[in-house]
Amino acid sequence: MQEIVSKKDYFDPKDLWILDEDDLISLEIGAGILGTGGGGNPYIGKLRARQLLREGYTLSILPHQKIDDEALCVSVGGIGAPLVGIERLREGREGLRCVRALEAHFGISIDAIACEEIGGSNAMEPLVVAALTGVPVLDCDGMGRAFPEMQMTTYSIYGHSSTPSALCDVHGNVVLFHHAVSELWHERMARACVVAQGGASTLASSPMTGAFIKKFAIPDSYSQAIGLGQVVRAAQKNHEDPIAAICRKEKGRKLFTGKIVDLKRHLRGGFVRGEVQLAGIDSHGGETGSILIQNENLVFHHDGEMECCVPDLILVLDVDSGEAITTEMLRYGQRVAVVALPCHPLLRSPEALEVVGPKGFGLDGIVYAPLKEA
Amino acid sequence: MQEIVSKKDYFDPKDLWILDEDDLISLEIGAGILGTGGGGNPYIGKLRARQLLREGYTLSILPHQKIDDEALCVSVGGIGAPLVGIERLREGREGLRCVRALEAHFGISIDAIACEEIGGSNAMEPLVVAALTGVPVLDCDGMGRAFPEMQMTTYSIYGHSSTPSALCDVHGNVVLFHHAVSELWHERMARACVVAQGGASTLASSPMTGAFIKKFAIPDSYSQAIGLGQVVRAAQKNHEDPIAAICRKEKGRKLFTGKIVDLKRHLRGGFVRGEVQLAGIDSHGGETGSILIQNENLVFHHDGEMECCVPDLILVLDVDSGEAITTEMLRYGQRVAVVALPCHPLLRSPEALEVVGPKGFGLDGIVYAPLKEA
Repeated sequence: MQEIVSKKDYFDPKDLWILDEDDLISLEIGAGILGTGGGGNPYIGKLRARQLLREGYTLSILPHQKIDDEALCVSVGGIGAPLVGIERLREGREGLRCVRALEAHFGISIDAIACEEIGGSNAMEPLVVAALTGVPVLDCDGMGRAFPEMQMTTYSIYGHSSTPSALCDVHGNVVLFHHAVSELWHERMARACVVAQGGASTLASSPMTGAFIKKFAIPDSYSQAIGLGQVVRAAQKNHEDPIAAICRKEKGRKLFTGKIVDLKRHLRGGFVRGEVQLAGIDSHGGETGSILIQNENLVFHHDGEMECCVPDLILVLDVDSGEAITTEMLRYGQRVAVVALPCHPLLRSPEALEVVGPKGFGLDGIVYAPLKEA
Repeated sequence: MQEIVSKKDYFDPKDLWILDEDDLISLEIGAGILGTGGGGNPYIGKLRARQLLREGYTLSILPHQKIDDEALCVSVGGIGAPLVGIERLREGREGLRCVRALEAHFGISIDAIACEEIGGSNAMEPLVVAALTGVPVLDCDGMGRAFPEMQMTTYSIYGHSSTPSALCDVHGNVVLFHHAVSELWHERMARACVVAQGGASTLASSPMTGAFIKKFAIPDSYSQAIGLGQVVRAAQKNHEDPIAAICRKEKGRKLFTGKIVDLKRHLRGGFVRGEVQLAGIDSHGGETGSILIQNENLVFHHDGEMECCVPDLILVLDVDSGEAITTEMLRYGQRVAVVALPCHPLLRSPEALEVVGPKGFGLDGIVYAPLKEA
């Protein structure tokens, strides 16, 4: 097995949490749920991470408060439409090439990988890149869920400039976004490049210090996701209600149980966009729900009234298994539970709501009201 | 006046040709003609170059055979749709920022600017960048005309890898295309970025050696363009036929005289695309012509038969003044002469025709036949 060491004594290897295949199964389920419909298909991501485990690589997680203030941490994630990510597999070393390009550009050696978004496949991508690089992944992320655009991380919101960044695709192309006049411009240019590259690539942002990460990352994301997966699996095994188990663990609320009666979904500008219509299962069609989608579930309306919106988490779960149904896997007739979880307080500040609240998605008519905890 | 010196004795300042405002007027006309409808509006470019002259900068040209074999030469040009270039002015220092970004990336200091395309505004852009940088422009280019895409230079065709390249926009964004798996991939990714940046930016390609330039650049482009402008101006002054004067100087042939009776033109994928229909002036409508456009004039049909196509030059000239009408300035009812000029032999090799012949534009039904010289 690969040994993960700190070249500069920036962390203590004794603090590492070494993942096994069982953890990956739980992470697949938990990251899928936290993905709020997006973040890339976690099943594909799990297969890639598991393959590395079987080849002798080490998937290791470090509590983010245990990293040295001066450590250089690079956040990495897949960028593109989940729909493309599931139909065209990665080459496998895109993320490593991103890290190497940044290291060469800055003349540095990085100490840890940070997670950009814990939702979906992007929970797996940092593990893969870190294993190939020989460094740990920090137990935190920049979203506490998944969001469709890059400026929507707490890293960007609280002042980190994500450029210079490196973008690599399945073909071997490497683009450095050397300077962007804003985080939004970085997103725009990178997104355009990703579309030209076929719709799914990997991006690593400029290094952050350990000190910054400790202050502004969403904490304990991997612990949360793996724990969530464990709770769902335990409920499945014991024939208990997994939806209730999720709500209990995450202080969430079940908003709706119904079936999908209409589904509009298309790929535009590199995003999966659309809307899902739901009819209540036990209400003889009287109760309705709808979900607006941009890669992730953005807004839930219940009988025409907005009940939950970004940045709070809107989960679409299989009503029996409690596992997430990602937006590209939605199908007519599916029976689903819609569950809402409160987002992390770092996403509810006024500066965060500008970026990840309804306004950040161009939904000017919707006013954010924090989800009431159950 | 700014003094242009060679820091490394890579050229002799005595060989420099220093341009004045009168030269710029001739260059505007000549580069417009060689632009074959594109390359950016040369009037806008001239204003920018003239402004620098009036501020004390030096616009200097060096015969490209006089540069040292080891000199590092960077080609630079505007990239985008001419239509956008004329409606949204440049910030002014985009090209300089490109050069500085490449110098920093490679850890070098460049010795000369090469011209990417002599057609249109892109004849002016290298003069502007070179003046700001304090180096000369070489008397050559990569097209001997204008073409819409970046892989269509003799530099790329004959083996130069144009990445790492730097792309800068009016906003201040800087993107480095660090590695592209092919010249066509470089074009695709850069074009997507340019569209995201608003449709008109500036790009500098990776440095070429003087030795490479001497072998594979189209020679004497600035001499040709300025000489062409002088011939047209002389004809205008002496009330002679400027069209005939152009054909004489460039061994060209007038293919058609007529007026524009239909014009389809739109902006798609960052290019101006369309088709012009012409009716013969003296034929009572019996004689027809049509021109296919992608930024530049690609193919001329005469009474339904293909008469001239890329890479040979198809010029649309004002029938009275002999000056070029760029594709974004075409209007219904204009009276124009269509003139064809033979392209440089470097563009007629089998490897060149793959890229800049009809096939390179997806026009599979058209077989290139070299224009017969007059």
